[in-house]
Amino acid sequence: MNTVELIKKKRDGKSLNPDEIKFLINQYTGKKIPDYQFSALLMTILLKGMTSQETYELTRAMLHSGKVINLSSLIGSKVDKHSTGGVGDKTSLIIAPIVASTGIFVPMISGRGLGHTGGTLDKLESIPGFKTNLSLAESMKVLKKCGAVLIGQTKEIAPADKLIYALRDVTATVESIPLITASIMSKKLAEGIDGLVLDIKTGSGAFMKNYEDSIELANSLIKTAKSFDKKVIAFITDMNQPLGNYVGNWLEVIESVHVLKGNLKNDLYDLSIKLAGAMIYLGKKAKSLQDGERIAKKKIDTGEAYKKFLEIVELQGGKVNYIDNPDKYPKSKFMRKVQASKNGYIKETDTYTIGMASLELGAGRRIKDDVIDHRAGIIFYKKSGDHLHKNEIICELFSNSNSKIKLAEQMIVKSLKFSNSQPRKRKLVKKIIR
Amino acid sequence: MNTVELIKKKRDGKSLNPDEIKFLINQYTGKKIPDYQFSALLMTILLKGMTSQETYELTRAMLHSGKVINLSSLIGSKVDKHSTGGVGDKTSLIIAPIVASTGIFVPMISGRGLGHTGGTLDKLESIPGFKTNLSLAESMKVLKKCGAVLIGQTKEIAPADKLIYALRDVTATVESIPLITASIMSKKLAEGIDGLVLDIKTGSGAFMKNYEDSIELANSLIKTAKSFDKKVIAFITDMNQPLGNYVGNWLEVIESVHVLKGNLKNDLYDLSIKLAGAMIYLGKKAKSLQDGERIAKKKIDTGEAYKKFLEIVELQGGKVNYIDNPDKYPKSKFMRKVQASKNGYIKETDTYTIGMASLELGAGRRIKDDVIDHRAGIIFYKKSGDHLHKNEIICELFSNSNSKIKLAEQMIVKSLKFSNSQPRKRKLVKKIIR
Repeated sequence: MNTVELIKKKRDGKSLNPDEIKFLINQYTGKKIPDYQFSALLMTILLKGMTSQETYELTRAMLHSGKVINLSSLIGSKVDKHSTGGVGDKTSLIIAPIVASTGIFVPMISGRGLGHTGGTLDKLESIPGFKTNLSLAESMKVLKKCGAVLIGQTKEIAPADKLIYALRDVTATVESIPLITASIMSKKLAEGIDGLVLDIKTGSGAFMKNYEDSIELANSLIKTAKSFDKKVIAFITDMNQPLGNYVGNWLEVIESVHVLKGNLKNDLYDLSIKLAGAMIYLGKKAKSLQDGERIAKKKIDTGEAYKKFLEIVELQGGKVNYIDNPDKYPKSKFMRKVQASKNGYIKETDTYTIGMASLELGAGRRIKDDVIDHRAGIIFYKKSGDHLHKNEIICELFSNSNSKIKLAEQMIVKSLKFSNSQPRKRKLVKKIIR
Repeated sequence: MNTVELIKKKRDGKSLNPDEIKFLINQYTGKKIPDYQFSALLMTILLKGMTSQETYELTRAMLHSGKVINLSSLIGSKVDKHSTGGVGDKTSLIIAPIVASTGIFVPMISGRGLGHTGGTLDKLESIPGFKTNLSLAESMKVLKKCGAVLIGQTKEIAPADKLIYALRDVTATVESIPLITASIMSKKLAEGIDGLVLDIKTGSGAFMKNYEDSIELANSLIKTAKSFDKKVIAFITDMNQPLGNYVGNWLEVIESVHVLKGNLKNDLYDLSIKLAGAMIYLGKKAKSLQDGERIAKKKIDTGEAYKKFLEIVELQGGKVNYIDNPDKYPKSKFMRKVQASKNGYIKETDTYTIGMASLELGAGRRIKDDVIDHRAGIIFYKKSGDHLHKNEIICELFSNSNSKIKLAEQMIVKSLKFSNSQPRKRKLVKKIIR
């Protein structure tokens, strides 16, 4: 097979067959196709699309570029959740312990934050001692012992995805539904799961800003998951404001603990219950989504979910005393309260800018090698739809840089739009697709 | 400026502005944009197209990546011809001396053959001693002395084009009208010409197999040439059979000499007269295209064109005695006559396959480093529309390899379609656009 001819075929609107897709992925992973040819191929895929058959084959080839974890020795369902990412999205920290406490296994491979979004691994690593880079053998031990493990993508898992993602990032080929689908599914399928709950974010803080695109992505992911005989449910959820009230790594751990303890019943709580409920349903521990939600709530109310969270943290090397007693955690050098300049309702939040402000404060990464300040971030006291009096505090910023905190304040002030009348409340879950 | 953002902009259907195009070309030529990003950009250009303004700016940026020859010291018009390439297309060898003998300067930068096509430089180099790699200073001397010079693209001329062309070749981004336009025009404009005659080939032996595509390319080239205030005329000409009767480097020199001496009045003669006539008209030595053709014919009839040809050959180091006495030239080891297997008319010729058969014989290059056998090739005694009796000779093959000559024979037999009734004669010039 000839790489240039295959690029031409795709470029001219024809479909690639399974052998051709396998050839391209294997040769690229084996460094036998140079980056400059593969990036031209990626651009043709972005601009010409792929059939669902091609997307399935692409996922398959990327999945089998590495190891597929075999969880057959664990008796019981294995279910995971994947979110397309947003600002303040810490549901994994809440969901994993809820679901694991029902006897379902949750082998969760997560990513790091980049640009305006946070990453589950960074949040977990803000817990002193917490290790996300466990080997597969160590992970299996933790999973067996407590029913959940939260780790990063190891070298063995879908190496093709790692290479391709890095190239997409620098060649303007990220925003392609088939490429996103294959990237997500190749990693998730490598976990050895039976079922998957998808949280597809849509809105100003999501990668898919457009509702139609998020539906298209959901359908592509569902179709691909089903081709691999996996049970799957997708939630299209709002990312037109940060999820929950805390943005920033350690701050998000604290908020998760509040939710797990049953002390906070905000949008983060609502969405966590919905997603956990769906996982419990897919894991056959509930008769319906509603029944799953009921069980999820109960796991919080009985304290089992929080207990499970502490168990996971401990097994992955995290110091539990910081969770129990957050005041021990080092403080940020600078704090700053952002006040309302007039009376009114928060009508709109440019969530992308909120994410970028959090990055400025030190909570995020501009490039992959940036070091994160785990304490940095934002606590929102008011969110979209809330009323504010002049000078009332909207949020509080935390950073180790005074100049950055001023810049972030300006960004946040700019990102909020006010109105005199109360705006219509946005639905948190816009659609469920199964 | 950020390369990824610029690729995104183009990818999303927006136009790049002059500064952005200049940035991309300069950074790539300066090796500051990696190949993998530039190939993604090339693929977006191929799939999304370019406005004529963008094509103009791209040409401009590529032109100014190198030296633009200044011919203002030569009193008189400077006119060149460019052909998009085909099989048996040796018009440059005939046209340059005809036009130069009228007092117009012809500074001709040509290319080499690749794949099924031949290249003017290879044909010229089949003349013992002929040098095509003259420096700019040497070229100016020859041009000044005899009115024409035929050389290859030097390092100083449009280096951006050289780099980009090499990348396009391996990333399936050759077939793009704006990229082809900028590649051709950046080199031709660097010659310092006032006028340009374009020979856009269409048909089975051309790069543009499709008539509509060749019209589109002609229009793009004309528009761009006019944006640079150049006089331009485009001929859309038939490449559904080899041009003339000889294919192969030295064989094509011999055929050119026959035409220049006035001994051969075939399709090659007809097209050479048309193209030379247009150049003479653009160079203000004729009142009309017809008048130009009349003058071109006269230059052959009086022997002036042939005399000029010998002058050019001599000034570029070629041994004129081989031209005067072709029998001195070394012979091919093997010759083979291809006979008709039945009575009938030649209805169709797959010219691409003829070109590939010529390559097999040794006359062409599969990859850039292949060495050419200058004597190898084909002489056709019959062409499309001609009648043949069974066993009558269609053509004769020349090669230094007996196995290759057999393979080429099979290819040629396959490439010809016969019919019992006389087929309609194809028009050589399909359209003139100005």
